[in-house]
Amino acid sequence: MAVLRGYVSGTWQTPQDEGAPIHDAVTGQEVARVSSAGIDFGAALAYGRRQGAGLRELTFHQRASLLKALASHLNEHREELYALSAHAGATLADARIDVDGGIGTLFAFSSKGRREMPNDTVYIDGAVEPLGKGGTFAGRHLMTPLHGVAVQINAFNFPVWGPLEKLAPAFIAGMPTLIKPASQTAYITARLVELIIDSGILPEGSVQLVCGEPGDLLDHLTEQDVLSFTGSAATARKLRTHPVIVERAVRFNAEADSLNCSILGPDGDIDLYAKQLVTEMTAKAGQKCTAIRRAFVPRDRLDEVTDAVRERLSRIVIGAPGAEGVRMGPLVSRQQREEVRRAVKALGGTPLFGDPDRVEAVDADAELGAFMSPLLLLGDPERAEPHEVEAFGPVSTLLPYDSTEQVIDYAARGRGSLVGSLVTEDTDFARQIVLGLAPWHGRILVLDRTDAKESTGHGSPLPMLVHGGPGRAGGGEELGGVRAVLHHMQRTAVQASPGVLTAITGHWTPGAQRSDDGVHPFRKNLAQLKAGDSVTAGPRTVTLDDIEHFAEFTGDTFYAHTDEQAAQANPLFGGIVAHGYLVVSFAAGLFVSPEPGPVLANYGLENLRFLTPVKPGDELTVTLTAKQITPREGADYGEVRWDTDVTNQDGASVAKYDVLTLVAK
Amino acid sequence: MAVLRGYVSGTWQTPQDEGAPIHDAVTGQEVARVSSAGIDFGAALAYGRRQGAGLRELTFHQRASLLKALASHLNEHREELYALSAHAGATLADARIDVDGGIGTLFAFSSKGRREMPNDTVYIDGAVEPLGKGGTFAGRHLMTPLHGVAVQINAFNFPVWGPLEKLAPAFIAGMPTLIKPASQTAYITARLVELIIDSGILPEGSVQLVCGEPGDLLDHLTEQDVLSFTGSAATARKLRTHPVIVERAVRFNAEADSLNCSILGPDGDIDLYAKQLVTEMTAKAGQKCTAIRRAFVPRDRLDEVTDAVRERLSRIVIGAPGAEGVRMGPLVSRQQREEVRRAVKALGGTPLFGDPDRVEAVDADAELGAFMSPLLLLGDPERAEPHEVEAFGPVSTLLPYDSTEQVIDYAARGRGSLVGSLVTEDTDFARQIVLGLAPWHGRILVLDRTDAKESTGHGSPLPMLVHGGPGRAGGGEELGGVRAVLHHMQRTAVQASPGVLTAITGHWTPGAQRSDDGVHPFRKNLAQLKAGDSVTAGPRTVTLDDIEHFAEFTGDTFYAHTDEQAAQANPLFGGIVAHGYLVVSFAAGLFVSPEPGPVLANYGLENLRFLTPVKPGDELTVTLTAKQITPREGADYGEVRWDTDVTNQDGASVAKYDVLTLVAK
Repeated sequence: MAVLRGYVSGTWQTPQDEGAPIHDAVTGQEVARVSSAGIDFGAALAYGRRQGAGLRELTFHQRASLLKALASHLNEHREELYALSAHAGATLADARIDVDGGIGTLFAFSSKGRREMPNDTVYIDGAVEPLGKGGTFAGRHLMTPLHGVAVQINAFNFPVWGPLEKLAPAFIAGMPTLIKPASQTAYITARLVELIIDSGILPEGSVQLVCGEPGDLLDHLTEQDVLSFTGSAATARKLRTHPVIVERAVRFNAEADSLNCSILGPDGDIDLYAKQLVTEMTAKAGQKCTAIRRAFVPRDRLDEVTDAVRERLSRIVIGAPGAEGVRMGPLVSRQQREEVRRAVKALGGTPLFGDPDRVEAVDADAELGAFMSPLLLLGDPERAEPHEVEAFGPVSTLLPYDSTEQVIDYAARGRGSLVGSLVTEDTDFARQIVLGLAPWHGRILVLDRTDAKESTGHGSPLPMLVHGGPGRAGGGEELGGVRAVLHHMQRTAVQASPGVLTAITGHWTPGAQRSDDGVHPFRKNLAQLKAGDSVTAGPRTVTLDDIEHFAEFTGDTFYAHTDEQAAQANPLFGGIVAHGYLVVSFAAGLFVSPEPGPVLANYGLENLRFLTPVKPGDELTVTLTAKQITPREGADYGEVRWDTDVTNQDGASVAKYDVLTLVAK
Repeated sequence: MAVLRGYVSGTWQTPQDEGAPIHDAVTGQEVARVSSAGIDFGAALAYGRRQGAGLRELTFHQRASLLKALASHLNEHREELYALSAHAGATLADARIDVDGGIGTLFAFSSKGRREMPNDTVYIDGAVEPLGKGGTFAGRHLMTPLHGVAVQINAFNFPVWGPLEKLAPAFIAGMPTLIKPASQTAYITARLVELIIDSGILPEGSVQLVCGEPGDLLDHLTEQDVLSFTGSAATARKLRTHPVIVERAVRFNAEADSLNCSILGPDGDIDLYAKQLVTEMTAKAGQKCTAIRRAFVPRDRLDEVTDAVRERLSRIVIGAPGAEGVRMGPLVSRQQREEVRRAVKALGGTPLFGDPDRVEAVDADAELGAFMSPLLLLGDPERAEPHEVEAFGPVSTLLPYDSTEQVIDYAARGRGSLVGSLVTEDTDFARQIVLGLAPWHGRILVLDRTDAKESTGHGSPLPMLVHGGPGRAGGGEELGGVRAVLHHMQRTAVQASPGVLTAITGHWTPGAQRSDDGVHPFRKNLAQLKAGDSVTAGPRTVTLDDIEHFAEFTGDTFYAHTDEQAAQANPLFGGIVAHGYLVVSFAAGLFVSPEPGPVLANYGLENLRFLTPVKPGDELTVTLTAKQITPREGADYGEVRWDTDVTNQDGASVAKYDVLTLVAK
């Protein structure tokens, strides 16, 4: 059996020894060998950092497009990855969670990158912060990609999703990635990386791979690198205290197994509860850091739940992935099975279903392969073990509770979890439990008859929602859409004059010079338009007739526009005022340049605030200023955001807002 | 001299030994004694956690109001704090940075809490994330306060600002604080805490104080506590690797001294540059973690800069704070002076101004007091020392550079800084430097002739801007407005049906049931109104006459509304369409309830998107749904945000937006 190659410094490298054997989870036979002997980690990281410069020249949208292309490419090669996954014990359903889940995460980040980030290389975070009354000094936060490598150390249970869910946000941010898979399933990740590299879609250096021991990898990290880890709490501790990580304050994100709970409400649907519990126990043979370890049920429903879960578990066929009717495969290795058996002993409790040492397996030798029966236990929630000991396999413990306060307290004894769930139709109960559990949880799922059909389940992290949890769960945070991209960037507060802020951010900043060169900015295409280009138009007098007519025409006869006496009594107006909609309509009438031209449409409006009431006789002037210009990749137009300021005859702003337009390139 | 008392578990406690002496920085005489002997840290933390429950019952706005009251109270006692600060060597200007800066931070967080957070106990982070096509399953991130104590370990140099800038966001978040001041200036912080406790403004347990050694404090931390540290990189490392911090993944934020740089541009104003440099060298005798240590100047301007800085330094009068003409006081202690002298030796370089071992002090004995001359050095930027050795006193090194790329590289050799600054009028240069430095900096100031007058200076962190930096600066982030509040909260992704999300968050979620009880929601006051209350009105047909009339009336004669042939050629419309402003005006005419009532005004509009063109003959229907109801503290009204959906005869949304109104209680 050949040793898995690494992909470092631009080439595939074969390790310089025979490596350690990895065994097929089903047959126990050797399936691959892994080693990192002879790999120069320092050189790999230095290479990644150099290649980062090219990656950073692409915009977020350009990177997002590449990610989408990669996702489509991998989609074509799913079958091959499914087949490889079977050697690790994954059924087709298990492999789909991993493979399709990983590819879906690429698609999702590509979409988020295009929809929620600018087509730029710098991300602006938050609003302009005025820092002086004179308007000559302001602050703004910008985020730039770190100039390092995103190093990921992955767990064995998601050899495809794990690398991809970490790669996606790093790549969108503009950081190259170095993947270190867990040895047990490294052959799957290695094939994934081959597919990525062979596709030639991502810029060279965006992805590197090292299988086997991490050697002196961490010694070469700098303050510009990011280390993301998924795995055991013990390894997380080791990494967190590594001298270089500490000395250089390397960003470190850990996502560790936790003792996740699922709570059945006093009214909750037992079928929904039992079905989800059994799914979580058996999917990937319970080898998920999000699986349900603690199943809390009202004491008076314990028997009923036990029966329902037992009945469902009894129908789970165990055996070789792909064999007729098989719903659950083996654990990843016999060693892992030994660990689970040890943990089950430490966990204690009364067995309700299954025996850790006996199981039947279809089309496989249950002992040679790493097969194990699902185990349902009954525990005492007042003991420490159910809240502390994790058996990382198809093992869950039923724990009875007597009140809402009590189950919230029990849940917190897990000292931090990735996810919790509850099954209830009672919205008050749901609110109490969710708010009670929230400080200890990164994610909480409320399952009821309304969402059951569409629910993605307790165990599935989703790309748009954060994944991670406090305390025992590692204290980290991954995914969550753009949040995860920003984890790979440095937030910097920039203080400067508005003109300099405009030059740095590319966004026109209030207080910066406007440019009015006599050409109406609606007559400029996207390439000609510059942030700060503006037009001032008006004044137009708003008459009482205008207000009365607008009320009649639109039907908006709100008393403040139509009834002088009633309007006098309004604490904010003290008399007839013009409709806000009239003000913005007149403003549009003033700033518009009506003939066909590059401006295609006004597709929206944001942050409109009416600041000063407009009274009959007031004269309105409007200033429109190009604030942000975003060409769209692969289209012949882009978005332009216009700062809009409508003022009255005293120079006071009566309305401020952003007009959003589509403008041709 | 009495030992400083601690305030723990609801009482003032006197330590159980004589404590260690703290000396007056000016006279060298004993000014206080500190000890933590006999303080039960575990009990203090447990007490804080218990008291947190009450704090969490207040809304963000209620906490913000208390913070404002506290700020006003402390404002009345500034003189006393200034006077105490003089014993630590602070001139009046120095004390103002610390005392007024701290009080200003309370005011700023109070304002941010009221303006940018809801009047609620839960903070909603980001938009609703649809998780299924059927609309029965969605996600949202909510943030809840951690159930622990915010423990702060402070540096000696800001005995008032340090505790207050950490207290403010923790308090707004709903977390009690335990303050551990640095011993050298603990008597100032102790007086501050007395003022806070005696005022009775904050709920009991919100603030505790322990002076002296931290004992076994850290051993009692849990995954729900937060540890914030400001001080040396060495201590940060010790804390970061503490077994309990690691084991429980305690949130740890470090802000360490760094080798901050200031860059003079090839064109930059030398006066501005020299003035800022001298201010940073001498304010608080250079004992600021944000002070300028590395002063980069174009090689050909080195002599001119040297002369300008020397000239300004020669005018700095050193002596007892308050003495005639004194601009710079002593260091905080003679021990600190010894450390600075040692660092100066290690730093090397050529002295351009000052002697570390000789100084004249007005109204003081320069040797008994911890006086030291400002020191300007000339360094070689190709050597390691200027980028690595920090002399935490009035010491800066001039370093010549030859090109933009080179100075960016030099700046990065500091391996992570809190702040950098540059002086230039050239916006291209500013953009290059800012983007080049950003990954290594938490804050960057661009000083020019436009903002010089209003600039708050290189060394001043501001409450609305993040403070912290990567790598050597500790890798942390404080301040930055609401961002700092959120550091004390747990982000939790909640997945549920829209109805349950509405119940949990209090925000009506699209897809949740609407309630139309026949009473127009504009007729309900704030107490009667519930999220989900709605009204549907229409249809109204939009005629070509309407469009033509609106164009004429408003002046918005954009061709897509007025010229069929030109509109046909528009790629998005393919024919005459109604103005977006006409659509929203007609919608208002449909949903309005015109008679005087609880709705006082429409003060704005947000997130308006035009989704489907409206053609002549289309029939519009509008549904308005109460989405978010925010009573305002101390006013007889509040804000109501209405989800607004305008649909056409096919049921397609033509416009979606939020209408913002003020509604009486």
